Amino acid sequence: VSTDSTGGWSELVRGVLAGEPRPLARLITRVENRAPGWQDALRALYPHTGKARILGITGAPGVGKSSLTNQLALRLVARGYRIGIIAVDPSSPFSGGALLGDRLRMSDVPTTPETFIRSMATRGSLGGLCQGARDVARVLDAAGYGLILIETVGVGQDEIEIVKAADVVVVVCVPGQGDGVQALKAGIMEIADLYVVNKADRDGAEQVVADIGAMLALAGENRAFHEMVYRTNSLSGDGVDALIDSLLGRVASVELSPARADERARDEILLLIEREVARRVRARLSDDARLAAAVKAVVTRQSDPYSAAESLLADLSGAEAGPDE
Amino acid sequence: VSTDSTGGWSELVRGVLAGEPRPLARLITRVENRAPGWQDALRALYPHTGKARILGITGAPGVGKSSLTNQLALRLVARGYRIGIIAVDPSSPFSGGALLGDRLRMSDVPTTPETFIRSMATRGSLGGLCQGARDVARVLDAAGYGLILIETVGVGQDEIEIVKAADVVVVVCVPGQGDGVQALKAGIMEIADLYVVNKADRDGAEQVVADIGAMLALAGENRAFHEMVYRTNSLSGDGVDALIDSLLGRVASVELSPARADERARDEILLLIEREVARRVRARLSDDARLAAAVKAVVTRQSDPYSAAESLLADLSGAEAGPDE
Repeated sequence: VSTDSTGGWSELVRGVLAGEPRPLARLITRVENRAPGWQDALRALYPHTGKARILGITGAPGVGKSSLTNQLALRLVARGYRIGIIAVDPSSPFSGGALLGDRLRMSDVPTTPETFIRSMATRGSLGGLCQGARDVARVLDAAGYGLILIETVGVGQDEIEIVKAADVVVVVCVPGQGDGVQALKAGIMEIADLYVVNKADRDGAEQVVADIGAMLALAGENRAFHEMVYRTNSLSGDGVDALIDSLLGRVASVELSPARADERARDEILLLIEREVARRVRARLSDDARLAAAVKAVVTRQSDPYSAAESLLADLSGAEAGPDE
Repeated sequence: VSTDSTGGWSELVRGVLAGEPRPLARLITRVENRAPGWQDALRALYPHTGKARILGITGAPGVGKSSLTNQLALRLVARGYRIGIIAVDPSSPFSGGALLGDRLRMSDVPTTPETFIRSMATRGSLGGLCQGARDVARVLDAAGYGLILIETVGVGQDEIEIVKAADVVVVVCVPGQGDGVQALKAGIMEIADLYVVNKADRDGAEQVVADIGAMLALAGENRAFHEMVYRTNSLSGDGVDALIDSLLGRVASVELSPARADERARDEILLLIEREVARRVRARLSDDARLAAAVKAVVTRQSDPYSAAESLLADLSGAEAGPDE
């Protein structure tokens, strides 16, 4: 771990391992911002990770994921768990900030030693959204949070990648949103372990349950339907305890296969390398007169983007993986 | 352009420039699959591009984007335009195929010389979704389609990046989906040129219109409210012609500023380089015993992903930008 001369990482790491919320929040922010020394901090925490289980909670906007996450967190804390919540919020590409909405709705969940909440904006994480959520989950794991809920909006590829990394994935649907099937079509069926029909008191809820059943049958799903589809009302809390019983049962039975563990580690290493190489290429080119010349040539149609990229890449050849820039 | 020995690209390019639909479909598929010679084909087409205008149409799932796109396409064809449609469909990360849904719903729009429809699966495009949509739009532009409608589900960062590249961006909302504000919170407000409240005959439609107005006022929007917010019914077609009048007006007045044109070209060149460098790194490492050893070390916690990535990158140093593989 770095010494204080590199910004006090070692103290933060100590605080995280001691379970203190303030160093935890500061360390996560600095890791997300890729402050110098971030790898050292994660390295120091890594031996303390691997104990937490991760629940992915996803669904289209407006299905009540945040209030369901609240309900789950409150009840899991009551059952003695320490809960980390990572709310991934697609946010403004320009302002870079997550809108206030989620944080307001999240305010039911008290920030106590038993719960820690972090909103991640899509653009907040310099290391990429998927790696960013992975880093934050790892820090929470090291800090002793045994269950980590990652809530995402399920429609983007990034968000699907994030929940794919969870141990158990819950897909939340709701009656009256499009044609039901559409709410599920974002490629999340293959990664869903459990379905929740939220706002189950509304008209059309049983139709959504039936639609999910039809899709499961079509997909040749062998598990019992009643073990896969749950009805909840995230405002009243109806049905949430039955969902929790099922989730905890699945979490307890999760055993990562060696092949899957290898695949995850491999994915992460390659992604970290890709990001770093891309960062170096961008840094190297940002002030390069050749890039400026190529842009001019493309805009005036003397060249095209494909040729410009190819010739810049040939110019860079053998250079961009160097240790400096 | 490549000769027939590299797979018949030159014939396809000739067919595309002659406005033939079959070579167009084949060329697009091969460009999406990054078949050898794809850059040559795009290079040959590039001088014939730059005439088309691109409309981005986005919104949450279930708001009726596809049927609205259908309505727009049918009516624009009736007004004498040749219309290309690119439907970007978040799809299964495992099967890689866009679900049948959109294609079925798209079937109202006849495939004629006046319209060309392409569904793009999130995972279908090896060059990345954003670059993929850009490539397809460029091919359609070269083929003489004057207006290109790109329809995306607006919640992922990828999808936001795609519509950002459009000349005019339409955000579609609908009553009764979450709290209205939520449907808009995906960072698309800053890039929206026009808002459509679809299913405007439903209860709550005027509330959505009012919510949008409030958000526009909050954002200090200067344009007249009635020029920015349109009510439609994409099933009956009510309101669609007024929307088209406004869209065509905006498209005609679009003039890309030199700074914005530079920025776009720069973004695209850098993205193409990043993708290619990442592809080379992955190709180089895929059979590398050092990667396999690093994966084992991470899984057994003798190392961690951050250290593993760093040392592999140091090993690769100066190698991955080489001209081969």
